[in-house]
Amino acid sequence: MPTLEELRIRLDDVDEQMVRLFEERMSICEEVGEYKVKNGRKVLDRQRERDKLQEVAGKVSTDFNKKAVQELYDQLMSMSRKLQYQQLVKAGALGRLPFIGVSSLDDKNARIVFPGTEGAYSQAATKNYFGEDCNNFYVRTFRDAMEAIEEGAADFAVLPIENSTAGSVDEMYDLLVEFENYIVGETIIPIVNTLAGLPGTELSDIQRVYSKGVALMQASRFLDEHGDWQQISVANTAIAAKKVLDEQDKTQAAVCSAYAAKVHGLAVLADNINDDQGNSTRFIVATNQKIFLKDAKKISICFELPHESGSLYHLLSHFIYNDLNMTRIESRPVEGKNWEYRFFIDFEGNLADPAVKNAIRGLREESINLKILGNY
Amino acid sequence: MPTLEELRIRLDDVDEQMVRLFEERMSICEEVGEYKVKNGRKVLDRQRERDKLQEVAGKVSTDFNKKAVQELYDQLMSMSRKLQYQQLVKAGALGRLPFIGVSSLDDKNARIVFPGTEGAYSQAATKNYFGEDCNNFYVRTFRDAMEAIEEGAADFAVLPIENSTAGSVDEMYDLLVEFENYIVGETIIPIVNTLAGLPGTELSDIQRVYSKGVALMQASRFLDEHGDWQQISVANTAIAAKKVLDEQDKTQAAVCSAYAAKVHGLAVLADNINDDQGNSTRFIVATNQKIFLKDAKKISICFELPHESGSLYHLLSHFIYNDLNMTRIESRPVEGKNWEYRFFIDFEGNLADPAVKNAIRGLREESINLKILGNY
Repeated sequence: MPTLEELRIRLDDVDEQMVRLFEERMSICEEVGEYKVKNGRKVLDRQRERDKLQEVAGKVSTDFNKKAVQELYDQLMSMSRKLQYQQLVKAGALGRLPFIGVSSLDDKNARIVFPGTEGAYSQAATKNYFGEDCNNFYVRTFRDAMEAIEEGAADFAVLPIENSTAGSVDEMYDLLVEFENYIVGETIIPIVNTLAGLPGTELSDIQRVYSKGVALMQASRFLDEHGDWQQISVANTAIAAKKVLDEQDKTQAAVCSAYAAKVHGLAVLADNINDDQGNSTRFIVATNQKIFLKDAKKISICFELPHESGSLYHLLSHFIYNDLNMTRIESRPVEGKNWEYRFFIDFEGNLADPAVKNAIRGLREESINLKILGNY
Repeated sequence: MPTLEELRIRLDDVDEQMVRLFEERMSICEEVGEYKVKNGRKVLDRQRERDKLQEVAGKVSTDFNKKAVQELYDQLMSMSRKLQYQQLVKAGALGRLPFIGVSSLDDKNARIVFPGTEGAYSQAATKNYFGEDCNNFYVRTFRDAMEAIEEGAADFAVLPIENSTAGSVDEMYDLLVEFENYIVGETIIPIVNTLAGLPGTELSDIQRVYSKGVALMQASRFLDEHGDWQQISVANTAIAAKKVLDEQDKTQAAVCSAYAAKVHGLAVLADNINDDQGNSTRFIVATNQKIFLKDAKKISICFELPHESGSLYHLLSHFIYNDLNMTRIESRPVEGKNWEYRFFIDFEGNLADPAVKNAIRGLREESINLKILGNY
């Protein structure tokens, strides 16, 4: 039996020849690319690719090798397509993306909408991004905020998209698909909740606690120590604070930020009651224009998948081959289609970058309903 | 300039040689596999793989080709590993998975726990899976149900995992990671909600509507027609029905199933009020034993990702090369680690199948904290 060393020398020898053939193959593919640029031919030729896969499978012996050589050629042809997209970019034939690069957001005198009420975390995020003195107002729901920017009642909306421990805000993902609004910025705000009540309230007075469902959940260790308190979920932590103020009832308290308590004239009865210290929420800044900041570094897109096994895997290869770092992937059901999914992907890049144009071009050709949600 | 036809003939010629080298390479890798089986060597040799990637990159000219040839060899070495895992399986050296195959679930006289109260959709799912006359009881929360089976207070738990329009039940995913309980079955139940109140209630009497938050959301078109109704979310649709019965107040109504209304002696005031017809929820059946049905067809696993760009893509290749069809992917934040994610994947297969053992072996070696959640 040969030693591992001997076997590896034989492998190195095969690889020497294989790499040479690989370079030759890529160079012929480049010539094919030139031909396609000149003649306006599409890069992806599904029939030719299918034929090639059948051909190479016919040339090998075992079932394992048939599968493997098809995977190998799937990858080789995918590389060749990526090379050809790059040639299209260089030839200026890739076309423009429908987004306009801007040097800064036009936020002078801008009206900014957020969901909730005065003192909401969304307001804190608004001031963090646009400055303490920005012109901001609130509406009741996430949908109301998306409508306000779509209609032009506001120039920007600030909305929560993800919490560091609770995960995605599912509703926002669905709204980003539904509305023709785009993400132009993001900001992260620490979530530190308190128990707040009317001044003079004792813990022993309390019978009912109001807050956003997820905020109640995230303070469950503290709240479980008072198991007799009724927990009632409302749309927003600051709305809970306002309710406690409005109803002037010392049996009621709110789980909300110290800032919301202050805005609504409540006293902090217990500070920092979250189970998890270091909790934070990421907010997006959205607008109704297809714009992106020229120094934007992150892109969010979504698409549906064709019904083929392995298709997500092949779509993700567009990030790999264009050297783009995928930072997040989420799936949500497609409305009206039971058990079908839409994928949301964040990756690093700028829409002006040829590698990004490449990847998006390839993804658009091979997925369904691709939408660029923003570059920020 | 050569024609497309001429270029393709040259490609075919290169491919002829390449495929021959590919077969030769796989055959040497098989010899390496035999050596490793005999000598108890690990399949994955990270250093050797890193050296090989550097070596092949050094042999090609452009940046594009360097990247591409490394991807190609990443894939070739991944194939070689999969081949070697198969050899380990054949040699009986792959080891056993810690799950025991059973012909049927031991559900005679079994006690089955579900969350909510009498009339909950979880109870409907329980009866659908275990039969109308099964011995079932309820606890308040999902966590309570998981604890009941962990402690042995119940033999099985029936819990919602995914809704066809609202998506994943995030909390259940976190609980499956936390508890040493395993999925052994699943069942899908149509969700048809009604508005239910005390007998004799008129729509005009109603001031407050109780239900699970997601059920209120999914009936928003109907409820928005009565914008003056206060909507209050409680843990479960059947708990809402019980509350309306208990409080005997005609200004209150519940959004719940017709079955929950009947169980709690309420009248159906409006039938089928969901926005989306055809809504359904998938429930899992969990137990505290590491067992799987011998005819089980779906496997759920989860793992965390090492911090390397592209690592999800490479992990997914284990499904492709073992010919396993991935049906679902979800991500959730890892508790205590801000902005890090755990991935949940469903794929078709049975734990007794060598391809599945292969894939899980490879995934376990290349991911962090892989857990098999069940085979059902």
